[in-house]
Amino acid sequence: MADTSYDVLIIGAGPGGYVAAIRAAQLGLKTAVIEREHLGGICLNWGCIPTKALLRSAEVFHLMGRAKEFGLTAEKFGFDLSAVVKRSRGVAKQLSGGVGHLLKKNKVTVIMGDATLTGVGKISVKTKKGTETLSAKNIIVATGARARELPGLEADGDLVWTYKHALDPPHMPKKLLVIGSGAIGIEFASFFNTLGADTTVVEVMDRILPVEDAEIAALAKKQFVKQGMKIMEKSMVKKLDRAKGKVTAHIETAGKTIKQEFDTVISAVGIVGNIEGLGLEALGVKIDRTHIVTDQYCETSVPGLYAIGDIAGAPWLAHKASHEGVMVAEKIAGRKVHAIKPESIAGCTYCYPQVASVGYTEAKAKELGYDIKVGRFPFMANGKAIALGEPEGLIKTIFDAKTGELLGAHMVGAEVTELIQGYVIGRQMETTEEDLMHTIFPHPTLSEMMHESVLDAYGRAIHF
Amino acid sequence: MADTSYDVLIIGAGPGGYVAAIRAAQLGLKTAVIEREHLGGICLNWGCIPTKALLRSAEVFHLMGRAKEFGLTAEKFGFDLSAVVKRSRGVAKQLSGGVGHLLKKNKVTVIMGDATLTGVGKISVKTKKGTETLSAKNIIVATGARARELPGLEADGDLVWTYKHALDPPHMPKKLLVIGSGAIGIEFASFFNTLGADTTVVEVMDRILPVEDAEIAALAKKQFVKQGMKIMEKSMVKKLDRAKGKVTAHIETAGKTIKQEFDTVISAVGIVGNIEGLGLEALGVKIDRTHIVTDQYCETSVPGLYAIGDIAGAPWLAHKASHEGVMVAEKIAGRKVHAIKPESIAGCTYCYPQVASVGYTEAKAKELGYDIKVGRFPFMANGKAIALGEPEGLIKTIFDAKTGELLGAHMVGAEVTELIQGYVIGRQMETTEEDLMHTIFPHPTLSEMMHESVLDAYGRAIHF
Repeated sequence: MADTSYDVLIIGAGPGGYVAAIRAAQLGLKTAVIEREHLGGICLNWGCIPTKALLRSAEVFHLMGRAKEFGLTAEKFGFDLSAVVKRSRGVAKQLSGGVGHLLKKNKVTVIMGDATLTGVGKISVKTKKGTETLSAKNIIVATGARARELPGLEADGDLVWTYKHALDPPHMPKKLLVIGSGAIGIEFASFFNTLGADTTVVEVMDRILPVEDAEIAALAKKQFVKQGMKIMEKSMVKKLDRAKGKVTAHIETAGKTIKQEFDTVISAVGIVGNIEGLGLEALGVKIDRTHIVTDQYCETSVPGLYAIGDIAGAPWLAHKASHEGVMVAEKIAGRKVHAIKPESIAGCTYCYPQVASVGYTEAKAKELGYDIKVGRFPFMANGKAIALGEPEGLIKTIFDAKTGELLGAHMVGAEVTELIQGYVIGRQMETTEEDLMHTIFPHPTLSEMMHESVLDAYGRAIHF
Repeated sequence: MADTSYDVLIIGAGPGGYVAAIRAAQLGLKTAVIEREHLGGICLNWGCIPTKALLRSAEVFHLMGRAKEFGLTAEKFGFDLSAVVKRSRGVAKQLSGGVGHLLKKNKVTVIMGDATLTGVGKISVKTKKGTETLSAKNIIVATGARARELPGLEADGDLVWTYKHALDPPHMPKKLLVIGSGAIGIEFASFFNTLGADTTVVEVMDRILPVEDAEIAALAKKQFVKQGMKIMEKSMVKKLDRAKGKVTAHIETAGKTIKQEFDTVISAVGIVGNIEGLGLEALGVKIDRTHIVTDQYCETSVPGLYAIGDIAGAPWLAHKASHEGVMVAEKIAGRKVHAIKPESIAGCTYCYPQVASVGYTEAKAKELGYDIKVGRFPFMANGKAIALGEPEGLIKTIFDAKTGELLGAHMVGAEVTELIQGYVIGRQMETTEEDLMHTIFPHPTLSEMMHESVLDAYGRAIHF
């Protein structure tokens, strides 16, 4: 009989769980990870990665449509949605296979099955072969989250989709309603709109991309509208009437309820943690709505039981999950660890134009009582942006007027998801405006705007 | 009669001169800039910017050719070289106009003419209207550089081109020889090769991109060769025989001289400083070959006379010139300034794949006696790179094993010219491996490879 006792057991092989497992194994801990569906979790299989593959196809399609502007000709061009999706699924499959390889290489035991906590340090796993009981001094719950279902807006996979259906869609939407304008909603809206779907986005809050800085969200909205997207803010879809090939949405907006017809609806109204069936209640694990409550080192109310990633609450970001996974593995191994500061975690949305940010928004910084200096630099004044044909966008920086601390950075425009890391490194190192001003950003790059935005906060921008 | 005495006079309105002028004016100094040709200099008009516009057209053309891979169709597509060039010239013109606007807005006097130093603090300017004499306590020479001409390889604008001809070419090369594989040579080779020219690059050194890390240069070469480029290293073009529509190149390679025919040759064998006609000799300004010798604050051997940018020597980079311009303007205004560390200036080459680097190469670090740790992370193990369809590339980091100082970072692959700034910020802030390891790079991005490369240097990479 196999040894079933481990140093660390991890439930869920998403970007939190598999990264925690690899790091734990690197540190010499005997580690197993239990996964019920796909290695790599939602992120690799039904989230971050396959959406980026879809959006890349849309980007190339978009550029083809602008051929003439670049001195090129494209008389006959188009897309084959099934081929676009096939590529996306292939990318996800390749990376999921890569995770299996990495776990094997690091000597992590992988168990495919459903896990339940049966006591402190005890897990029962239902696999195809039967039920196994495993034990470990430390257990990490990394079961992630799934799409929130609102009554009346339930997905059916035909007319009404979640992100899962949208990633492997049964048809190309002609008239599309996207409910919710967080990262998931806006990315799908941008994808299908670029491919030619008549797209409407309904957002219950007073603006799209509600977690982003208001000025950035407004600029993104302006571009979406220019691209033909319809955006309804402060509006709510109350009900969907489904008929053959047709959905009638009842939308509460501007004090009245209007009816609009669509052939496809994507519901992207948030996510809920996968807390069910884990035996959390019996163990007395503290839960808040659909997430597990933890301390700043991801430990739950039960000693030795940790929760990381989406199941441990916002922000629902893969890199937060991975970083927590590394931190918990190191803590278990007895290393000194640092708590993660939420305001050092960047958020990226891969719509067109892209949006990226880290730290406080202008409104939040003011709300917290900071005396702030705000810098702005527009893409239209940057040489590389003009050369790329991407002159729409803004880089905005927010500094503490007293100390010069970089409180927040907010961007909309081409490649900003790759630019934001510079400010993240700066924040990690507690940068002030002085450090960033003395940094020689290479020319000609979009990143020069990161410099100019800082200079602008202090009345010193050169190119604006 | 107009007042002809200034606080600062600047000769040359390139990225060194015009930036110095704006900064000086911001600091309340009465400033004039003298330019003989185009505001924005070579960089905006015949360098950095128009090449980026050409390369963007080539990028879109390249992506069209890969349509099927992305699930797209493109049955008939092509390029119109004159339209590609027209766009590039338009971008340059737009930005040059922008510089004029910025100078005006900052109340910098712009004088179009040829300047000569006639004494300490004295300049004579020949304009269309006649000769003017100006005086200033401080003078900044920012006259830049031009293409080096080697005997027998002189450009004629028809068969043999410099970068200027290549930017507004009289024809599309069918069989192209590029002499020299620095940034300028390789960018044009990459551009014309992507558009279908049968391209050969001849480099006298033992490898292309000679200033880059050898491993990175070798990976770039591998990709160029895969794209059909022919590369001859340790080879030298001794002579060009020109006939009607045809050039025969005599190439010394592997111990013998071979003859090859081309219809176009681009000579990119380096640059020489524009030191002539400035009256430098009469003033006794110290010169080394074709550049002006300065101290670490850009002051020449004549007090109050400064030299910045290409005329002050390597590295020949616009951002170095701009940063020197700001530094000198601040020094003149009495501010405390910091000398620029050459190893904190990043270099970018916008070929396909892109190349970017900052700090010491592996060979240089060893030569300097450092005990080093080297990290590597390949694009093929990064989710975003695979989703983009850009799985070729490498991020390499070099640390001082004793102190953890980031000594150098070297990259080849998609978007690396935009990624490098993160490491530049890190170096500016004297980062160690610890700071970079604790930084939460957003997912899914190419920038995650910057994290993994650091982790790899310490045996901790997660995804490889």
